Amino acid sequence: MTDYQVQSNEVGIFQAAIDNHLPLLIKGPTGCGKTKFVEHMAEKLKRPLYTIACHDDLSASDLVGRHLIGKDGTFWQDGPLTKAVREGGVCYIDEIVEARKDTTVVLHPLSDHRRILPLEKNGEIIEAHKDFVLVVSYNPGYQNLLKGLKPSTKQRFVTLEFDYPKEELEISIVCQQTAIDIKTASQLVGLAREIRNLKDSDINESVSTRLIIYTALMIKNGLSAQDACNHCLILPLTDEQETIEALKRLVNNYF
Amino acid sequence: MTDYQVQSNEVGIFQAAIDNHLPLLIKGPTGCGKTKFVEHMAEKLKRPLYTIACHDDLSASDLVGRHLIGKDGTFWQDGPLTKAVREGGVCYIDEIVEARKDTTVVLHPLSDHRRILPLEKNGEIIEAHKDFVLVVSYNPGYQNLLKGLKPSTKQRFVTLEFDYPKEELEISIVCQQTAIDIKTASQLVGLAREIRNLKDSDINESVSTRLIIYTALMIKNGLSAQDACNHCLILPLTDEQETIEALKRLVNNYF
Amino acid sequence: MTDYQVQSNEVGIFQAAIDNHLPLLIKGPTGCGKTKFVEHMAEKLKRPLYTIACHDDLSASDLVGRHLIGKDGTFWQDGPLTKAVREGGVCYIDEIVEARKDTTVVLHPLSDHRRILPLEKNGEIIEAHKDFVLVVSYNPGYQNLLKGLKPSTKQRFVTLEFDYPKEELEISIVCQQTAIDIKTASQLVGLAREIRNLKDSDINESVSTRLIIYTALMIKNGLSAQDACNHCLILPLTDEQETIEALKRLVNNYF
Amino acid sequence: MTDYQVQSNEVGIFQAAIDNHLPLLIKGPTGCGKTKFVEHMAEKLKRPLYTIACHDDLSASDLVGRHLIGKDGTFWQDGPLTKAVREGGVCYIDEIVEARKDTTVVLHPLSDHRRILPLEKNGEIIEAHKDFVLVVSYNPGYQNLLKGLKPSTKQRFVTLEFDYPKEELEISIVCQQTAIDIKTASQLVGLAREIRNLKDSDINESVSTRLIIYTALMIKNGLSAQDACNHCLILPLTDEQETIEALKRLVNNYF
Amino acid sequence: MTDYQVQSNEVGIFQAAIDNHLPLLIKGPTGCGKTKFVEHMAEKLKRPLYTIACHDDLSASDLVGRHLIGKDGTFWQDGPLTKAVREGGVCYIDEIVEARKDTTVVLHPLSDHRRILPLEKNGEIIEAHKDFVLVVSYNPGYQNLLKGLKPSTKQRFVTLEFDYPKEELEISIVCQQTAIDIKTASQLVGLAREIRNLKDSDINESVSTRLIIYTALMIKNGLSAQDACNHCLILPLTDEQETIEALKRLVNNYF
Amino acid sequence: MTDYQVQSNEVGIFQAAIDNHLPLLIKGPTGCGKTKFVEHMAEKLKRPLYTIACHDDLSASDLVGRHLIGKDGTFWQDGPLTKAVREGGVCYIDEIVEARKDTTVVLHPLSDHRRILPLEKNGEIIEAHKDFVLVVSYNPGYQNLLKGLKPSTKQRFVTLEFDYPKEELEISIVCQQTAIDIKTASQLVGLAREIRNLKDSDINESVSTRLIIYTALMIKNGLSAQDACNHCLILPLTDEQETIEALKRLVNNYF
Repeated sequence: MTDYQVQSNEVGIFQAAIDNHLPLLIKGPTGCGKTKFVEHMAEKLKRPLYTIACHDDLSASDLVGRHLIGKDGTFWQDGPLTKAVREGGVCYIDEIVEARKDTTVVLHPLSDHRRILPLEKNGEIIEAHKDFVLVVSYNPGYQNLLKGLKPSTKQRFVTLEFDYPKEELEISIVCQQTAIDIKTASQLVGLAREIRNLKDSDINESVSTRLIIYTALMIKNGLSAQDACNHCLILPLTDEQETIEALKRLVNNYF
Repeated sequence: MTDYQVQSNEVGIFQAAIDNHLPLLIKGPTGCGKTKFVEHMAEKLKRPLYTIACHDDLSASDLVGRHLIGKDGTFWQDGPLTKAVREGGVCYIDEIVEARKDTTVVLHPLSDHRRILPLEKNGEIIEAHKDFVLVVSYNPGYQNLLKGLKPSTKQRFVTLEFDYPKEELEISIVCQQTAIDIKTASQLVGLAREIRNLKDSDINESVSTRLIIYTALMIKNGLSAQDACNHCLILPLTDEQETIEALKRLVNNYF
Repeated sequence: MTDYQVQSNEVGIFQAAIDNHLPLLIKGPTGCGKTKFVEHMAEKLKRPLYTIACHDDLSASDLVGRHLIGKDGTFWQDGPLTKAVREGGVCYIDEIVEARKDTTVVLHPLSDHRRILPLEKNGEIIEAHKDFVLVVSYNPGYQNLLKGLKPSTKQRFVTLEFDYPKEELEISIVCQQTAIDIKTASQLVGLAREIRNLKDSDINESVSTRLIIYTALMIKNGLSAQDACNHCLILPLTDEQETIEALKRLVNNYF
Repeated sequence: MTDYQVQSNEVGIFQAAIDNHLPLLIKGPTGCGKTKFVEHMAEKLKRPLYTIACHDDLSASDLVGRHLIGKDGTFWQDGPLTKAVREGGVCYIDEIVEARKDTTVVLHPLSDHRRILPLEKNGEIIEAHKDFVLVVSYNPGYQNLLKGLKPSTKQRFVTLEFDYPKEELEISIVCQQTAIDIKTASQLVGLAREIRNLKDSDINESVSTRLIIYTALMIKNGLSAQDACNHCLILPLTDEQETIEALKRLVNNYF
Repeated sequence: MTDYQVQSNEVGIFQAAIDNHLPLLIKGPTGCGKTKFVEHMAEKLKRPLYTIACHDDLSASDLVGRHLIGKDGTFWQDGPLTKAVREGGVCYIDEIVEARKDTTVVLHPLSDHRRILPLEKNGEIIEAHKDFVLVVSYNPGYQNLLKGLKPSTKQRFVTLEFDYPKEELEISIVCQQTAIDIKTASQLVGLAREIRNLKDSDINESVSTRLIIYTALMIKNGLSAQDACNHCLILPLTDEQETIEALKRLVNNYF
Repeated sequence: MTDYQVQSNEVGIFQAAIDNHLPLLIKGPTGCGKTKFVEHMAEKLKRPLYTIACHDDLSASDLVGRHLIGKDGTFWQDGPLTKAVREGGVCYIDEIVEARKDTTVVLHPLSDHRRILPLEKNGEIIEAHKDFVLVVSYNPGYQNLLKGLKPSTKQRFVTLEFDYPKEELEISIVCQQTAIDIKTASQLVGLAREIRNLKDSDINESVSTRLIIYTALMIKNGLSAQDACNHCLILPLTDEQETIEALKRLVNNYF
């Protein structure tokens, strides 16, 4: 099993949604455990997981499949979404707002009562396997006018909201994943939480649990806490010298 | 038969339009039953239904067909529109304003007295089968300067306007589709209707019947009304913490 | 013969233009009979008609032809324009301003004294058949800065201007095409003409003859005049509730 | 021989330029005879003429050539420019500013002392045949910020400036090409010249000689002068009703 | 071994990061030794190095691989990233912010705990070899709104910050790489450092160590210090005559 | 040998740069002899010259090479840059800022100590032949925000700055290349220099030596100085009637 630690009622909601064949949308900041949660549920459900990281140039074809040219002319090759639909797997589409619009519309007939995937390019219409689960995520922090989710898309998903774990939980996650002593873990989490509360800084997204884990790993590896924090917590956050200096002073209050 | 519940004179208008071989345009907000209605009519008419969800990158070729490369060179493959035109099926083009302009123009010769589909790419001109029906839909809520329907397109369609069902009807739809008790259904519909009337919120589209059904299903599944509303009615609507809190308070007035 | 009804001197001008091998440009609003007129003339001249509806993505290749890949490699396939040029047909390019610029320039050597069509892509230069007629249309209502016709294109065409038919003529057209009683036809045309005169409405193009015909057909089919007007005259024109209400009141003055 | 009538010193300049293997640029408004002049010179020189009308989507490949797929894989096919370069023909590139930038740069090594055409796509470098002549034209009236000719392009061409012919010459051209009586021809030319002097109208380019010829042909064909002027001189110039009325009044002063 | 000279704790951080299978991000101005450092570490680790210079049109396929058409139809060809992932090499992606967004997202599953590379185009999922190291670099000087690194990308990398070497070190680098006398090297470095401190000039990036080395090489080659500085230090920095003159005066203070 | 006439220390700098395997950048206005200089040096060095004129659509593939489809599937074809790199030729990339960004980045590994050309598309990495020389040019006059050279590119090149030749030199160039009498040559150069000093005109680039040569050739051919200047010096510079008149008056002061 993955080492996922439950944060709230997310497991129950997820279970209830798939019992009703409803698709899920997970909102949350970067590095707060969205991916790990989906991996955890897929394992729990014993279903294959297909993860797709979206980007500006991800098109419907990358999800659904495309024609390739073989020795006997073109043949159709399923994309990851199509595979999940046929086999009854979990398809996790990460940061969906980054993808091109056509990708989201491809999901419509899959995400309502029809549960079908029309392969327009080769004229097939696939009924989703009963075990097929569709999960998409996005980061409200990025939301912009150009690239929000259309209401007609959002209103098809049972929605979960994730955030960074609570203090105790985050400490135990750091300990468990890095085998670092609880004292250092607590200092690092405390530091991270203080940085997260720096409102009027130029940091446009805050310290993720992932970065705390990086830092702990580097300390375990023999680096000084200052160096580890500098290279794993501070420099990944900002390029502004003033901010860097301010954060270094903050580190010194902890170590 | 699909479990569609008639809302007004839509069935008669639809029938009269196809008796005269006139194409139909259905306006209405997301999740108010446009798709279900078309599925219902196709079943009633015993004609195959081809549904196409439009998007930024949907081109005429996706509707009409394209050349593929086979072992003997290129061959032509009909798209869903072409199939419907040949077989006399119902072609339903959902959210047509999302598609690229060329798609709408392809519909012109099909939607006037000519009833033909010219396949420019392979030089064929198809006379539509007598049973062919063309239905397009769009959501006036999205209309924008860049992507309105051209008058020369709009003025080719008999037009139906859909809205969310009336209170009693919506309650009975929720009961019928979720087997939830009438009391809870009434509370959910009441709540949804109150949210729909929130004028000056940042919600750019309102609670669909679909979301009410989701919520009811989750309650049936054992979730608390609060949780179900939060994950199925509120979070899918907005990312703004203030709005979320306001909507939660609203929920508490009902449950 | 098509049931075209002559409006003015258009037939004579058309004839004089083709006697001199001059191309024609037809200006006019949507649904006023441009297409029917060209069909009528093609029939009268007993020449094949090729109609092309233009759109944002229509390129020169869609008119002229393209290379396809066959079992013996690529072969050239004529487009509709090329066919008309070879056979001496009528090529009608509808709403030419919608097409991409390259399409209009392809027409230049065909529309001046040279009467040739250079197929740049495969190096052939075709002399137009003596019976070849080039007709293009556009709707001045759409004209915009981005997509006007270049003067160097416009100044190659004998130009006809179409408008909605005069009252009596429009009434007789409606009667003839729908077999509705003259009284209702007159009411509908009167109503349409009153709507056309609504200057400061948000309607960016007005009621076409086509919509009047739709309405008459629906009434013949048993719909009430109110319903028919609502679904065929009003809703296709606008999405604004105020305008819709205003137009409904107008309808009530007539029926 | 074409029926070209010399306007000024253009023939001498053209001859001197090609004697020195210098390329030519012809500036001038639409329909003033640029194309006819180049046809005339090509005939005079007994060299094949390749005319290319430029547009937004004309790319270097359309001039130079491209790889096509044949039964034995790809083969190279010369474009019109390449043919002229090999055979020693006249290549006339009309409205070059309309073409994509890459087309103009392809002309650089051809238009300076090197006289070579590098076919980057297939690695060949062609020395221009001694008789090869490069002529490009553009219409300063269109010049815009986005699409001017780069100085590094302009400064490679001996430049000719064309304008509408002088009154007597234009009259004789009209008579010669339409066999109309001199009186009518004079009236038409006088009318055209008066329109050309309408400064503050919304006409963004003025009456070309071509349109005068159209009008004369239509009158010869039996149309009234009013009708002919309306359909061949006025409607091709503008869509504005006010301007149209003003021009009609002007016509009445002449006929 | 490459002639890299250690500047600070970069080697230790690099080692600690790869001991924990963490990816690295190197920030720093142009020509300060980022590339040399990565070459040095790859040699030290005895692992193959794959360097990719990013640009506007670098797409995920250029990193990951693509289908090519062979005599038996399409076959897959690994890109440099895929090769490094399979073989356990070092993949250095230089100036990653210059690349298209999809390239950065391809790195996500490789740069977190999963260490996998999904080849969406051919459906394979590759587990990274234990020795695989991912290093990316970017130049904060260029950072712009359009093309910053997404937080969700940045927060996956242990980050190193490079700058120009300290004075003594830079002098010794110049001597070692050009075999120039220490006196000239010191003058050149002193000059470069003074230019780097010119705040309010129009120079948007400053003299790199690389340019100092160029200058020294040219002097060794017999050029006067003035000429060498002019052609290797000044003209590569700016096109502004005023700035050029100012910098020449500065040079005269040193030579 | 080409008839290049040395202007300053450009030959020595060029030689010193290639002795140290350093790439060169030549700045200068249009038609001042950049191309001739590079041809001259290539001849002097007895190395093949590959010249590439850049434009908006020139991509890395046009420089490096591409896969073509042959009877046995795809094969790789070297581009001009790759040929020069393999054979040890001179690759001259003219007006590099006009090219797409990816082209400049392709040059990075070739223009620093690595001297390699990675062919990402087919996975080969080529070590540059010892005689390979890279020369790029651009025209600071065009520099714009969108299309400047990146500092990380500029700072890789030894830079030469060209300008129009000094008066005496320019006169002798004109005489030598046109065999015109020294008096006329002096008048033409004097005229050109006076035009170059017209600051506040609308001429966005000034008379090149090339245009003076054109003019001299036309005079030799029997044209009057007025005509020659008009067609070769004035009309290529501007479309503004006022400017044209002013320049004609200027010409009359000389002839």
